[in-house]
Amino acid sequence: MVQDSKILDVAFNPQSIAVIGASSDDNAEKKSWVGRLLEFGYKGKIYPINLKAPTVLGLKAYPSVKAVPEPIDYAIISIKSSLVPMALRDCITKGIKIAHIFAAGFAETGMEEGKKLQQEVVSIIKEGKIRIIGPNCMGIYNPVTGLTFNVRFSREAGSVGIVSQTGAGMMELIPHANARGVRFSKVVSYGNALDVNAPEFVEYFAQDNDTKYLFCYVEGVNDGYRFFTAVRDCNRTKPVIVLKGGLTEGGSGAVSSHTASLAGSELVWKAFFNQTGAIQVETLDEAVEQIVAVEKLPEIKGRRIGIVARGGGVGVVATDTCERAGLKVPALTKETRLELAKITPAEAGSSIRNPVEIGLGRFGVAEGYALGLKLVTDDPNIDVVMAVINPHVYTQEGVGVKEIDQAAQVLIDSSKTLSKPLAVVVTLGDDINVIGMEMEAQQKMLKAGVPTFSTVEAAILAISKMAKYWEFRRSL
Amino acid sequence: MVQDSKILDVAFNPQSIAVIGASSDDNAEKKSWVGRLLEFGYKGKIYPINLKAPTVLGLKAYPSVKAVPEPIDYAIISIKSSLVPMALRDCITKGIKIAHIFAAGFAETGMEEGKKLQQEVVSIIKEGKIRIIGPNCMGIYNPVTGLTFNVRFSREAGSVGIVSQTGAGMMELIPHANARGVRFSKVVSYGNALDVNAPEFVEYFAQDNDTKYLFCYVEGVNDGYRFFTAVRDCNRTKPVIVLKGGLTEGGSGAVSSHTASLAGSELVWKAFFNQTGAIQVETLDEAVEQIVAVEKLPEIKGRRIGIVARGGGVGVVATDTCERAGLKVPALTKETRLELAKITPAEAGSSIRNPVEIGLGRFGVAEGYALGLKLVTDDPNIDVVMAVINPHVYTQEGVGVKEIDQAAQVLIDSSKTLSKPLAVVVTLGDDINVIGMEMEAQQKMLKAGVPTFSTVEAAILAISKMAKYWEFRRSL
Repeated sequence: MVQDSKILDVAFNPQSIAVIGASSDDNAEKKSWVGRLLEFGYKGKIYPINLKAPTVLGLKAYPSVKAVPEPIDYAIISIKSSLVPMALRDCITKGIKIAHIFAAGFAETGMEEGKKLQQEVVSIIKEGKIRIIGPNCMGIYNPVTGLTFNVRFSREAGSVGIVSQTGAGMMELIPHANARGVRFSKVVSYGNALDVNAPEFVEYFAQDNDTKYLFCYVEGVNDGYRFFTAVRDCNRTKPVIVLKGGLTEGGSGAVSSHTASLAGSELVWKAFFNQTGAIQVETLDEAVEQIVAVEKLPEIKGRRIGIVARGGGVGVVATDTCERAGLKVPALTKETRLELAKITPAEAGSSIRNPVEIGLGRFGVAEGYALGLKLVTDDPNIDVVMAVINPHVYTQEGVGVKEIDQAAQVLIDSSKTLSKPLAVVVTLGDDINVIGMEMEAQQKMLKAGVPTFSTVEAAILAISKMAKYWEFRRSL
Repeated sequence: MVQDSKILDVAFNPQSIAVIGASSDDNAEKKSWVGRLLEFGYKGKIYPINLKAPTVLGLKAYPSVKAVPEPIDYAIISIKSSLVPMALRDCITKGIKIAHIFAAGFAETGMEEGKKLQQEVVSIIKEGKIRIIGPNCMGIYNPVTGLTFNVRFSREAGSVGIVSQTGAGMMELIPHANARGVRFSKVVSYGNALDVNAPEFVEYFAQDNDTKYLFCYVEGVNDGYRFFTAVRDCNRTKPVIVLKGGLTEGGSGAVSSHTASLAGSELVWKAFFNQTGAIQVETLDEAVEQIVAVEKLPEIKGRRIGIVARGGGVGVVATDTCERAGLKVPALTKETRLELAKITPAEAGSSIRNPVEIGLGRFGVAEGYALGLKLVTDDPNIDVVMAVINPHVYTQEGVGVKEIDQAAQVLIDSSKTLSKPLAVVVTLGDDINVIGMEMEAQQKMLKAGVPTFSTVEAAILAISKMAKYWEFRRSL
């Protein structure tokens, strides 16, 4: 069998791709694999394989990979499941070392026919002449080579890698993360994991220089110990976020009909997270927030958070949310409070205890906001600061693009000079006239490297998990 | 002392209001109380009280309430806290029966001066000639009379009442709920609760014919047993949602600096929720989702949910989320699955086990979607159905306004004919070009009475709490 990291290097960076079952029916509603590669700007050679058509989307087509005169690195197999074994044998004959089987209809159907077919594929690859990603998956996205399973993904490369058993989930997560300023190094959706499985992928990403952070969505793993070791080792230098799908009873049933994986017990996974120190998330939306945190939030030295936000009941609820997430919201020192009292108005609901209400976002940049932020951050009782602005509450009171932009700038400037990590929340309202401005403010801050979140709850959860992660790292 | 419900009737529906400390400085950034009443269209008489100005915003002003020739129902006291006792004595002389003290600077400051001032007010009202809402609060919003503390609130009346110790929180919650199609009967923000407290308000709403559902944000109550009884009794016919602020250690500290309330122990509140059957929420955002559910979701007969959404990993995560929230995601019967197999394509990740993927939202209305929804709903294993559409994932593949609108219409039509409750999720992406369409689809469905949520997690949490609520109601 070809050595893992080398073979995966080929899969992530193929110089040539055969699309077996290349369709010439390429329209906006249902892009073909060839159409996607062309549109996304794949830099290598594409060989469409089609029994009848002489060309596919302007490219010369071949009836079989065996008919292609040049060598081929990688195959995407997009045909009916029953035809897959024959196609695989052709790939082996051609000397293709790794193939992505897009087709579904194997063990995940729960039907005898599908299980038999999966067994047949297993015996074909046992000879060791070809490796498989899939079946029942979307394969690879690598912005550098232009290989993708969705043309909406960013063409810009970044530092986050993904190992995912779900493709549909990635179709949502990646654009969502892109919109939040996240860029990816390499992504793989690997479905039923009939051959290459999570541990090998994690090992690959651990040694991949382009990847600095890793997110894994796994439903089940074939070799639990190898996965455990791979995640543990990677996580010591590159934070690993893991979403384990199918942890509940009902979820494990859904897993079996999705990727035919064995979900494993909740207890085993609890031990896995405790011992590897991997960051556990529960939903794909939460994964995006955690990726933002992992990439942009500097090391947090403790769990004591300073909140600069609306006070009153909003502050009380934020405090409860922090404490439920394992953070502490301590009172600021008397010294800090005396200084804060000089710059905050004594209005209904205002407070200088912590949470602190200084007024940014209400009527644009309140005088003293940057100073207030600094006072809270420098307080010896505080390890990390969360600043919340909610422009939609005030836009009808005369706050507009200028003020929101100004607020974003103050926060960007502050984040560069403050002595401790700063997380920002720009909440999005329901007002379509304002939401665009708020998104732009988020974008601006994310581009400037400020960890920016859309809800107070999401920010708190992400911060608390980073605090825990750094505790783990320091304990090593 | 004037009888509670009668005096609160006056406060919620005053024929005339004196604004003590009426400011003529009315601009977009900081609306005055008089300016708000005028802009919002208050239907009664307004008497601005201002020591120096002869008119305020075009209205004749008076140096004191005592100088007003006509009787006055209600006073809004918006002056420095130190001047409040004198103003209250004037109100008593004038025969005003109830006043809202907007001013802060009482016990919540934690300072001796503030506490003394609060004591002075207490001794003034002990004589029983005047009742107080507040201090340190925003007072009343009643769209019918045109009384409000924020001009952005809807002028349309509805069936949800609010008893809230936070005003700032309501400034966010009410527009948010308005945008989600919720309309309010009457709202009160009552701050420090120096006199009228949560129990009296709840008793008032329980007998108020305009109110069918109640949301309470409380930090502490003076008379725990009376509050318990009031909520328990109300909740038997009108669902009561309660957000208890300051349940955590840090939160209770924040409470004392917000409204000087005693937060009470977590254990006591746990018993409170168990015994009253009130629906507990933890954040203001969650409160909005729960209000939508309480108002629009019909009685749920059990905890078994059918999910019609993306399958694959997205379905696995949704299933886990359901089970964590106490719902069950059972496999559908063989009969249902055979019928579903006829209308769903066997693609990668598609599933007919539950969650079921039928394809709406992907390429517009898939043929058979309404039928599929009906099949899932009619399955004997299912009590409630959640349908999820996420148009932003597909808009770049040719799905536009027309398809999204069509999808909304299918869901509206289905919700009217299905045999069991249907909840819909329209997830909002990060694409500013699509988010407007998605919000419009949400609006359209909410207007048609379909319980519509913005995230799968929010919908699941709200549904699970309604299932629990109805179990409680049926156990009575």
